[in-house]
Amino acid sequence: MEKICFGVDLGGTTVKMGVFTPDGRLIDSWEIPTDKSDSGSHILEDICKSIEDKLAERDVTKKDLLGVGIGIPGPITKDGTVLNCVNLGWGVFNVEEKLSEMLDGVKVKAGNDANVAALGENWQGGGQGFEDLVLVTLGTGVGGGVIIGDKIITGANGAAGEIGHMPVVYEDAEVCGCGKKGCLETVASATGIVREANKLLKRESMPSKLRDIDDFTCKDIFDAAKEGDEAAMIVVDKLAEYLGIATAHIAAVTNPQVIVIGGGVSKAGKFLLDKIEEKFAEKAFHACKNAKFALATLGNDAGMYGAAALILCNN
Amino acid sequence: MEKICFGVDLGGTTVKMGVFTPDGRLIDSWEIPTDKSDSGSHILEDICKSIEDKLAERDVTKKDLLGVGIGIPGPITKDGTVLNCVNLGWGVFNVEEKLSEMLDGVKVKAGNDANVAALGENWQGGGQGFEDLVLVTLGTGVGGGVIIGDKIITGANGAAGEIGHMPVVYEDAEVCGCGKKGCLETVASATGIVREANKLLKRESMPSKLRDIDDFTCKDIFDAAKEGDEAAMIVVDKLAEYLGIATAHIAAVTNPQVIVIGGGVSKAGKFLLDKIEEKFAEKAFHACKNAKFALATLGNDAGMYGAAALILCNN
Repeated sequence: MEKICFGVDLGGTTVKMGVFTPDGRLIDSWEIPTDKSDSGSHILEDICKSIEDKLAERDVTKKDLLGVGIGIPGPITKDGTVLNCVNLGWGVFNVEEKLSEMLDGVKVKAGNDANVAALGENWQGGGQGFEDLVLVTLGTGVGGGVIIGDKIITGANGAAGEIGHMPVVYEDAEVCGCGKKGCLETVASATGIVREANKLLKRESMPSKLRDIDDFTCKDIFDAAKEGDEAAMIVVDKLAEYLGIATAHIAAVTNPQVIVIGGGVSKAGKFLLDKIEEKFAEKAFHACKNAKFALATLGNDAGMYGAAALILCNN
Repeated sequence: MEKICFGVDLGGTTVKMGVFTPDGRLIDSWEIPTDKSDSGSHILEDICKSIEDKLAERDVTKKDLLGVGIGIPGPITKDGTVLNCVNLGWGVFNVEEKLSEMLDGVKVKAGNDANVAALGENWQGGGQGFEDLVLVTLGTGVGGGVIIGDKIITGANGAAGEIGHMPVVYEDAEVCGCGKKGCLETVASATGIVREANKLLKRESMPSKLRDIDDFTCKDIFDAAKEGDEAAMIVVDKLAEYLGIATAHIAAVTNPQVIVIGGGVSKAGKFLLDKIEEKFAEKAFHACKNAKFALATLGNDAGMYGAAALILCNN
């Protein structure tokens, strides 16, 4: 009989679901909407139903289901307790126990979505082959995850890898969504990068292609920088400097083999990666300096892969 | 027959050696000089001889020796390979294998001295009862160690916990012993604190008790600050701010339960601890904010304790 495992990436809008073989191949994937009504109380039911349907479709019994791994968009402790997942409307409960009960005792492992994505990149993505890595995701927000010895570092309150909230900005610091000032996220998220560019263009009078674009995006900034636009280059250099400082701090704490850069902003590719690496080399302690820099390769599937790894790699 | 374990803290000047019972009681301790002649090639011989003598004295055979744990003042990998321990004159070799061979196959476990001290504080010191902790030692230099799940985090090159080299100073940054500018060590080591005080007194004209003391020490600064001396208070506040920033970075990366402050500078006690905690509360992400702050309690014995824990706690 076919043995399979589910990797579930539970997001605020959709749930990405994947079927994996025991050796880690993704053989099927689909999405269902995240129903946040009634304090998110239908979410786990919907996931269970989708799993049961898929089992029936593939003619697989629960006996041959190796388990369900799930990434949650909020803090979660080592024992699987979610702590007020506000964007789902959830309070405090053990999601591993509850989902397992709903699936008649199937093995369930849960983790924070960013940490789980880091595990995915460690398993089959940009950090494959390295047991000690850090993922930094630069998207709408800035997040990340710390993997040591191929395992997720969860931390006392499930808040390890909260790289977006490292206090790197001292001067002219903006208020972050978290309420603090000067978080990495305020300058290294897509929104933050655009805001910094707008501030620069207002402050300085240099000509720039960006001045001709209404509501320019983060991609416009990188495109302009790649073409040598002075203002855009200043913005990218400053971004790289903050990321160099943050990764140097991370390196001094956990000394990873590889630092993987992911999220939408990382689509700027090697151009951005090289600049971060250059600043890292200036700021990092010599004994940590040989950390490699790599781009994330799993994109939006990283969470699904990592969730499956929770089961298949016994994390 | 009595079963024992040795905890050895190998320093640049002396080797501190302790005998521990299987349940972790220190029942004997002494020191021998560190003989750095001939590229430190006599150091392990001297340690072996001292161990053999102690075994004879206590009438214990190697069969009843549970093992020897040893802290090394330099980077060391997970498998026990020291990487150019410059202050001993050592090159690259596996110290666990070599020492074990010299002791007829006794179990030997080695770790970096700062990391091992962190394990000691985790085991029986200021971090006792917490499995996730970070030790920050403020002494002649600034060092530390990261413990997760009661285990030392070693890192790719044995450089995890190199907290003294976090690049926290952006303005008016001094060159660190490591060659980089702006390391935490340049402002938070005993020497760094005194230098910052001298810079302030030169820059500002305020009266201060410190002006009446030739070559004032770090302790003089804390004593003056405790008595309300304005200049000394500015120095201590700035120190606390840098430590608050560094510990907030650490918390965002590993989210420890407790942050233990040790080293000579920590003799300033609760006065300093409260100030660091206050700055940490300003800088740290809310989900990491409930980290406790504690003073190290094992003093110079932390390395010996941690070395014994390498054996007795199966680290």
